[in-house]
Amino acid sequence: MTARAFGISIEKASGLPIFQQIADGLSASIRNGVLPAGARLPPTRDLADALGTHRNTVVRAYEALSGAGFVVSHVGRGTFVTELRDRAVTRGDATSATLDARAGGLPWASLMSRTAASESLQRGDRIARRAWPADAINMSRFEPGADLRPVETFRRCLDHVMRKFGAKAMGYAPREGVEELREGISRDLVRRGIPASADDVLVTAGSQQAIDLLARALVDRGDAFFVEEPTYSGILNLLSAAGAQPVGVPCDDEGPDPAALERLTRPGVKGFYLMPNGSNPTGRTLSLARRADLVAWSRRATVPLIEDDYGADMYLDASPPPSLRSLDGEVVYVSTFSKKLAPALRCGFMVAPRGLHDHLVPLKHAMDLGSSALLQYALAEFMERGYMAAHLARTRDIYRERRDALVEALHQHLPREVTFERPSSGVLLWLRLPGGTSAEQVFEAAHRHGVLVSPGSVNSVSGQGAPGVRLAFCTETPDRLREGAKRLARAIEAVLGERRSRGPSLDLV
Amino acid sequence: MTARAFGISIEKASGLPIFQQIADGLSASIRNGVLPAGARLPPTRDLADALGTHRNTVVRAYEALSGAGFVVSHVGRGTFVTELRDRAVTRGDATSATLDARAGGLPWASLMSRTAASESLQRGDRIARRAWPADAINMSRFEPGADLRPVETFRRCLDHVMRKFGAKAMGYAPREGVEELREGISRDLVRRGIPASADDVLVTAGSQQAIDLLARALVDRGDAFFVEEPTYSGILNLLSAAGAQPVGVPCDDEGPDPAALERLTRPGVKGFYLMPNGSNPTGRTLSLARRADLVAWSRRATVPLIEDDYGADMYLDASPPPSLRSLDGEVVYVSTFSKKLAPALRCGFMVAPRGLHDHLVPLKHAMDLGSSALLQYALAEFMERGYMAAHLARTRDIYRERRDALVEALHQHLPREVTFERPSSGVLLWLRLPGGTSAEQVFEAAHRHGVLVSPGSVNSVSGQGAPGVRLAFCTETPDRLREGAKRLARAIEAVLGERRSRGPSLDLV
Repeated sequence: MTARAFGISIEKASGLPIFQQIADGLSASIRNGVLPAGARLPPTRDLADALGTHRNTVVRAYEALSGAGFVVSHVGRGTFVTELRDRAVTRGDATSATLDARAGGLPWASLMSRTAASESLQRGDRIARRAWPADAINMSRFEPGADLRPVETFRRCLDHVMRKFGAKAMGYAPREGVEELREGISRDLVRRGIPASADDVLVTAGSQQAIDLLARALVDRGDAFFVEEPTYSGILNLLSAAGAQPVGVPCDDEGPDPAALERLTRPGVKGFYLMPNGSNPTGRTLSLARRADLVAWSRRATVPLIEDDYGADMYLDASPPPSLRSLDGEVVYVSTFSKKLAPALRCGFMVAPRGLHDHLVPLKHAMDLGSSALLQYALAEFMERGYMAAHLARTRDIYRERRDALVEALHQHLPREVTFERPSSGVLLWLRLPGGTSAEQVFEAAHRHGVLVSPGSVNSVSGQGAPGVRLAFCTETPDRLREGAKRLARAIEAVLGERRSRGPSLDLV
Repeated sequence: MTARAFGISIEKASGLPIFQQIADGLSASIRNGVLPAGARLPPTRDLADALGTHRNTVVRAYEALSGAGFVVSHVGRGTFVTELRDRAVTRGDATSATLDARAGGLPWASLMSRTAASESLQRGDRIARRAWPADAINMSRFEPGADLRPVETFRRCLDHVMRKFGAKAMGYAPREGVEELREGISRDLVRRGIPASADDVLVTAGSQQAIDLLARALVDRGDAFFVEEPTYSGILNLLSAAGAQPVGVPCDDEGPDPAALERLTRPGVKGFYLMPNGSNPTGRTLSLARRADLVAWSRRATVPLIEDDYGADMYLDASPPPSLRSLDGEVVYVSTFSKKLAPALRCGFMVAPRGLHDHLVPLKHAMDLGSSALLQYALAEFMERGYMAAHLARTRDIYRERRDALVEALHQHLPREVTFERPSSGVLLWLRLPGGTSAEQVFEAAHRHGVLVSPGSVNSVSGQGAPGVRLAFCTETPDRLREGAKRLARAIEAVLGERRSRGPSLDLV
């Protein structure tokens, strides 16, 4: 069934959430000029009636557009299309020598695929582009702190492999990845109880490309794909790019809720993506019982589990329970060296069941003709020399110290309504905000207070998830984390205070 | 309309070539065991009648399956499904500790997307995996010769940037790429008459990822996309992965035939991908007149041109005519450092009209979180020091010498029925075989004679293109190229001789 109104058409059967279809339709009209800057969007109630949907769905679409910078809402007046210049705040278009596509160019808006035009890809981009004061305390950036990157030892490995392999290190790598690296990875996996030979390892550009590859290998447009609610924003972008319909599985402190999972299960689900150790954004580590439940469910439901184990070696207390892949060889195992060593390696990998692996190799090759041989040789050398193990031991101690400093300061300063769990793996901590609080407002207020945090709105499939913000404690020192906790507490106080005085209405129009 | 027979269903309206749908249907049945090893495929005539299609279409599907190793044909007996072990010749499954997915695993064949299951992705994989004698002369490998990679100067640049940028070089790069590199690239473009600022440049993992990005940004399933016939096999893989319907535009020695292009033009075509300088596989450089024609056609037809200019700096005679992008700012310009410097950099880039560029940046980020900062800094340093210009001047001389040696030897040894043009840019030369010759048979015969060449069957959209083989003259010395030409001539003689004695029938069943 198709419903049309105000130039938007929604198809119930398309598999895409209705709010997304409304947001996509409106953003297309804004981009191609049908809705010019300054135009007022129809009141949410009118549009909902015309499309035969709920008002909340339209509100959610307007929020998404507002998040992406396409519109701005003024209380009591309505929602308006923004000026083009406000949509691309950080870019110096004026200096560009390129012919201006807006003046007589090709009709790019109508040439674009549904994927590229989707709103969810723009959302994270806007946050990533925000300028912030140089002295701001960064609890948003999720990569090893600059002081923790092993520059000198890695420089020596690079130099060694350039001298040893020379021209070979500068050529194309084998399709599956450089053998030395796959050997090193498989030895490491076996040590952690995951049976794998070098032949089972496929090297990818970070875990990000591994999950992109999986989304493309498994998803046809409209297919359902399970994720944790909340989940990693990057998987939502990729599922959106693959045309999947993401389904958020509610989670408690142990992991995905088994009853909810059973209730959501239906034929044709193509996978369940999850991070068992130090999950992004919640910092949660799956209990052993839940791991066993998940593996049994996967077999029963014939839905593949995609285990993103970026945090395997980044445990801060006891080492985590066995990996899902060690419990069941049908689990697809994905990991990366970006978080535990250095993002610039662009080295991740995947261990997949043979029936899938054989299809992934040519697809990975088609996507980028393989990852850099040079960086793979250097990383293999780094592991072989024992630098990796030493680096992990050192950074675990430092991250533990940072976590403890942050946890203590948060306990001391946060208002009682804001709660959190102490993470046992990884470098992420999730603050649960009181129901009805806007994570984006907290993000903005924190920004004004000189702290950078990640609003959980980018992590929610439905946008209806419980509000929260993600704190990363990898890049700042204990002292600055303590100061950051203090500033953030003040920012949250300000938002909660404003909310109490204004009442609960968050209506946009 | 849907036609079904022998477990295959074809949909005329799906936008996918019929032969492809037949091949995909059969390969799915083979992979999931419905057609076990040893099973005989129906005679081509019977299957064609049952599906209401032409017999040639079924023959083409069987050829594709045979190319991918799924079936084997025996003259006079029919076409049979191969043993699983023959389909994965080069892999050591036996040593794998992974649980065997074929014994009680998840139903991967039915979980796979149409993309991953497509036959075209498997085709090139089979050729890439062929083992060959260590002393074979390699005229297939398309990357800078091992003796031409500037190991020492690049090692110094790497070391310098590790010392200078340290931790920064090991972190995530900005979404568009490292500024120093984008500056260097834009200066280089301006010098070649292509107006571009650093803000217009998007760094990608080789040109391969740039065209993947474009395919995803422009194509919805079933959309038509123009390519040269024959064209680069990698774009066919990507278009197949994006669900596009590739349309081959016939070409003559100057480039795409304008009359054929007009005839093929229809609404909804999402792009025309072409390599103007030293095209892969034909080695042809577009004439200026054809460049002007193409740009005018693109505006008239509102179809974007995707200019893959890997060969811009690899001209061997006069420098090539102006780039398409310098003629029209709506052209999407793509290039790479893989062929002119070193594949292991995984550095390519794209300059796109602003209306498209803004959508490509978040999509690129979603795909792999950006390219390696370290390699980008090192490449920028390599350009800044003038090493790049010196390297190009040196390799141009060497490649010219290699081309001249190969061309001379081919003129001397090849049978008269085999013709070719002398390439003026790049490192590829295309041999046109007499009509009815099988490029795959020439590939096999050359292999037996100790020469590796690339069969043009991977370059043809329809599989009906004029037969040819591609010779790359970048990795071997003049002496070995001369010897290779001699061996190849003998191999071609053998194939032509066998064909003459056997008569023209190439029927598979």
